[in-house]
Amino acid sequence: MNFTVEKSIEILERTPEVLEAMLKDISAEWTEKTEGGETWSAFDVLGHLVHGEKTDWIPRVEIILSPAPDKTFELFDRFVQFEESKGKTLPEFLDEFKRLRKKNIGVLRSKKLTGKNLEEKGVHPALGEVTLAQLISTWTVHDLDHIAQISRVMAKQYEEEVGPWIDYLRILNL
Amino acid sequence: MNFTVEKSIEILERTPEVLEAMLKDISAEWTEKTEGGETWSAFDVLGHLVHGEKTDWIPRVEIILSPAPDKTFELFDRFVQFEESKGKTLPEFLDEFKRLRKKNIGVLRSKKLTGKNLEEKGVHPALGEVTLAQLISTWTVHDLDHIAQISRVMAKQYEEEVGPWIDYLRILNL
Repeated sequence: MNFTVEKSIEILERTPEVLEAMLKDISAEWTEKTEGGETWSAFDVLGHLVHGEKTDWIPRVEIILSPAPDKTFELFDRFVQFEESKGKTLPEFLDEFKRLRKKNIGVLRSKKLTGKNLEEKGVHPALGEVTLAQLISTWTVHDLDHIAQISRVMAKQYEEEVGPWIDYLRILNL
Repeated sequence: MNFTVEKSIEILERTPEVLEAMLKDISAEWTEKTEGGETWSAFDVLGHLVHGEKTDWIPRVEIILSPAPDKTFELFDRFVQFEESKGKTLPEFLDEFKRLRKKNIGVLRSKKLTGKNLEEKGVHPALGEVTLAQLISTWTVHDLDHIAQISRVMAKQYEEEVGPWIDYLRILNL
């Protein structure tokens, strides 16, 4: 499937509603537990998504489109949300994510990106040169990845409860 | 996390809204494509979920709670939906799933299941004896499994578009 900004926005604009449908007013047991060890809870994933809206996606779009000679991105901190999450509640994160995402889609649309813009490049500190189209594609897939992760983390809370059906449920074997 | 009927219903009642938020009015390219080969599209998964509401979960609850001497389930046909899907549209499936799920949760609640009921058993044709609690747990995890699958199938449509970021996106490596 070929990339377009509009097809990407179709996913990006749905994610706050998807997360709200999955998580709003659900028991804390579903959202506070992890897959064990250093893995994340649904709440942690939400914090990560909020942090990305603030510091990752749109700031990188701006770097690529800027006239700066050095278009190297800052490395995205995947752990800082544990600090920022302190004292926050899940409904607050859902609202904040919805608000930030709406604003960021507005910024994206306001750029009126041309085919030429989409081929412009930035430099990822680990991956090297990447295009604007690849950045927006990754933003899109990143949403879907975390929706799947939240589904998996929640599913694993019932890992023992399903008994012998565990062999039929792919999500419990990831 | 220990099983309860109410915690299971928290997931079961959200799934129609989650699917609606993900899929309603989105471009057909996102919902009609598969992961390749014999895999399913988002549309196929919806058909499978509708079929399950009709023939799998509640009928098996009824078998377990019945006084029948033989409580062997009928084998669930995971492919019949391809016949039933012909001529159906995605919005029709979303509406049908929402209606059937609401009805089935009503049936589940109407049973006022006791701890003793939840330990009652049926016989899965391949897995052997399973309890009612395991059946309801599986219904719940099965929803989350298919939400994750739909996320994955959609994400894979952008597999090539993300460029070097593919290494960072777990969902593209499943």
